[in-house]
Amino acid sequence: MRYLRFILDGKKQTGVRVGDKIRVLGATPLEALLASGQDLETFADDVPGGALVTDDDVTFLPVLEHPPKLLCVGLNYADHTRESKLEQPKYPTMFPRYDTSLAGHGQPIVRPRVSDSLDFEGEFAVVLKSGGRHIRKEDALRHVAGYALFNDGSVREYQFLAPQWTMGKNFDNTGAFGPELVTASEVPSGAKGLTLETRLNGEVVQSASTDTLIFDVATLISTLSEALTLEAGDVIVTGTPSGVGWAREPKLVMRPGDVCEVSLTGFATLRNPIADEAA
Amino acid sequence: MRYLRFILDGKKQTGVRVGDKIRVLGATPLEALLASGQDLETFADDVPGGALVTDDDVTFLPVLEHPPKLLCVGLNYADHTRESKLEQPKYPTMFPRYDTSLAGHGQPIVRPRVSDSLDFEGEFAVVLKSGGRHIRKEDALRHVAGYALFNDGSVREYQFLAPQWTMGKNFDNTGAFGPELVTASEVPSGAKGLTLETRLNGEVVQSASTDTLIFDVATLISTLSEALTLEAGDVIVTGTPSGVGWAREPKLVMRPGDVCEVSLTGFATLRNPIADEAA
Repeated sequence: MRYLRFILDGKKQTGVRVGDKIRVLGATPLEALLASGQDLETFADDVPGGALVTDDDVTFLPVLEHPPKLLCVGLNYADHTRESKLEQPKYPTMFPRYDTSLAGHGQPIVRPRVSDSLDFEGEFAVVLKSGGRHIRKEDALRHVAGYALFNDGSVREYQFLAPQWTMGKNFDNTGAFGPELVTASEVPSGAKGLTLETRLNGEVVQSASTDTLIFDVATLISTLSEALTLEAGDVIVTGTPSGVGWAREPKLVMRPGDVCEVSLTGFATLRNPIADEAA
Repeated sequence: MRYLRFILDGKKQTGVRVGDKIRVLGATPLEALLASGQDLETFADDVPGGALVTDDDVTFLPVLEHPPKLLCVGLNYADHTRESKLEQPKYPTMFPRYDTSLAGHGQPIVRPRVSDSLDFEGEFAVVLKSGGRHIRKEDALRHVAGYALFNDGSVREYQFLAPQWTMGKNFDNTGAFGPELVTASEVPSGAKGLTLETRLNGEVVQSASTDTLIFDVATLISTLSEALTLEAGDVIVTGTPSGVGWAREPKLVMRPGDVCEVSLTGFATLRNPIADEAA
């Protein structure tokens, strides 16, 4: 199943992909379905059939607008750690996104007024259907509801104004999340063996196999749960491979008029134009 | 007004301090009252009077259990930056807490199984009643609903396993938040001129004037809103002064049986015993 979240006729709706159409499933957000224990592998078959609409009829929202936690992993591909001129930590490097920073598929990633240093980071995210504490690595993937694409848009100048990256990762409308939540049964276990690619204006700027993740999905779930209680609806954004604009010479930044795409084998492409913050 | 949040007879309730008693105001959490635009300066007077109970009747919860954002400031007192052997950044150093890490007044701060490096950080927190983007410094304090105490309990070994502090700041039941949300009208503007003190087993381990904050409350609100949209119910935890256990020689850590207290002039003391994580 491939779930989407969007505005249709002024109302927020959840839907499921049916061919090139979207079947409307009702207003309940995916995070609420997950919190109530709904099985997304069957949910869309179990609800009465709603209207069939097209992508042109809707405005996409982040697949989850208000997940309980948005846990982002940095330095999770060795070649990106090298281009960032950092040492590879032996433990996951975690930073937050707050949900005010999210953007839907097709919506602008916004270059803020205060800095011309907006960079792309193509990633895939894991969405949990259940949680807990001290989850064993061998049990970890049972907690996965599915996967989605993420563009961890980063305002680099602000990321490095202080030793913690939080602010550069949390400008409004910089974290694109979608277009679809693809349930775990449609994805190889742990999202292994897939090619993650980022394109800026059609040109490939990042490309890597998900096999090269340093901390794979099961390890992340297990390791994070050593410290904190994971919950249904939590999102783990797994990190970006090499090729980011800020590590290039000369630096490459995203500017209004650009279009950034993130793709993963078997997933619909996450595509966002870049726009300036409103005056 | 001084608001509290607690469990009474198995139900979560909001209350207001009346002398040495608590008047029960109903189930609606403070973050929901703030999101709906309730004025906490008058709310307690406007609702029908509920039961009067004593502190012994209730189990305290974090004053806000699920704020939209928990934004924590590091390195916001020069002497703490020095003892941490870091350079003073010219921009706020922000890290997250997720709400799974919170603990109520009187409840244990929990030393995790995996590390014997649990440290205290006495702080005060600001709770917003409204938000927005690009808030001017001169308008910032109009957005403050009130203030509360915070013990930013930190598992130091995990804080420094990776370049981002997130995991060491997010162990379950390490962030004590309460006991009361004191509304802005009862606190000097911006919480200036107050003495913040942390005591471990009765001994003063941290003591500083809130006047020595590097980024004061108005500056924090204004600066953060340059990047992200602040919302009613958001919490800014303003940072800790010098004296933390991990900077001492020998290092001082919190262990089961200890009691840690955070106090601020005019505020009820936030008091938490330390306990081991359940086996």
